[in-house]
Amino acid sequence: MKDNGSNWTIRKERKVYDNPWITLTEFDVLNPKGNPGIYGKVHFKNKALGIVALSEEGKITLVGQFRFPLSQYSWEIPEGGGPLGVDPLESAKRELKEETGMSASHWQKILEIHLSNSVTDEHGLIYLATGLTRGQAHPEDTEDLKTMEIPFGEALEMVLDGSITDSMTVTALLCVKVMLDKGQIKLSI
Amino acid sequence: MKDNGSNWTIRKERKVYDNPWITLTEFDVLNPKGNPGIYGKVHFKNKALGIVALSEEGKITLVGQFRFPLSQYSWEIPEGGGPLGVDPLESAKRELKEETGMSASHWQKILEIHLSNSVTDEHGLIYLATGLTRGQAHPEDTEDLKTMEIPFGEALEMVLDGSITDSMTVTALLCVKVMLDKGQIKLSI
Repeated sequence: MKDNGSNWTIRKERKVYDNPWITLTEFDVLNPKGNPGIYGKVHFKNKALGIVALSEEGKITLVGQFRFPLSQYSWEIPEGGGPLGVDPLESAKRELKEETGMSASHWQKILEIHLSNSVTDEHGLIYLATGLTRGQAHPEDTEDLKTMEIPFGEALEMVLDGSITDSMTVTALLCVKVMLDKGQIKLSI
Repeated sequence: MKDNGSNWTIRKERKVYDNPWITLTEFDVLNPKGNPGIYGKVHFKNKALGIVALSEEGKITLVGQFRFPLSQYSWEIPEGGGPLGVDPLESAKRELKEETGMSASHWQKILEIHLSNSVTDEHGLIYLATGLTRGQAHPEDTEDLKTMEIPFGEALEMVLDGSITDSMTVTALLCVKVMLDKGQIKLSI
């Protein structure tokens, strides 16, 4: 048992790959039963940020893009990476502005999640943004985005019928649904 | 635009790393704006399976383990990997049995999600298992597991207060909450 409560022993490690977004390290380990093995860990250099931008009319903004790793198109809440040393709320505000042109007068962090903890340390933060002001979007070079604003209930149906599969989006919309039902989010309508 | 709707062009690719669970490939690409860049993609050799095992008394079983990539302890629904060529429902039944000793008379797939689609193709399936029969657990060598059975509402509170951060578990419990509220799941109590 190590200081952090770990029941794994690291015997050796080597960095296998590095790019601006991830590092892959392979560890020689003894597993919790004391037997030798390897563990390939993917470290993420950014936090994953997702924003539910909910208007007073009860609509949310979804962003559509082709996701290279999946080879498929995906409709999602506005998402982006926030560098580890930067206040994630500031990165979330920047991402919402870049992807949708929107700013928000009220921000609330509603969930923190670990997206794929068997292989990666990717850490996601989900925000609810309300009090929206519209403006001009400025997506990054790697992004070819469409946006649409639809009633929250329709977006939730897209989660429940399997049209939306991005896990940050699925989690965020289910969480907002539970919070709305509990009366923890008030819309003006 | 390619046949699958992609707006990315692959110019070259090289396999960087391979182990029994993942493959990392680096692609030379032209991004959606036509500019050159690289993309590091992590391919998962297993589907991620998660099981909400809900008893007639409205309790669910959580599994606790130290997660190596996070260096922290994590309470989760029973989860495991299902090889790509195998019926995921059969793998889910095996995982539930191994980790908790339980079998279930009724299985329902409630969500499919992509866990981290900016870097990986990891595909998760979440099942609701009811009609439970208890038995003896047989965890794998790499697993040093604790289990606890608690009321569903308490597990949901652990999601909402941030004690549970595993994204499969967060998503699964929020989805079951929404389905319970809609009357789509009936408990006998």
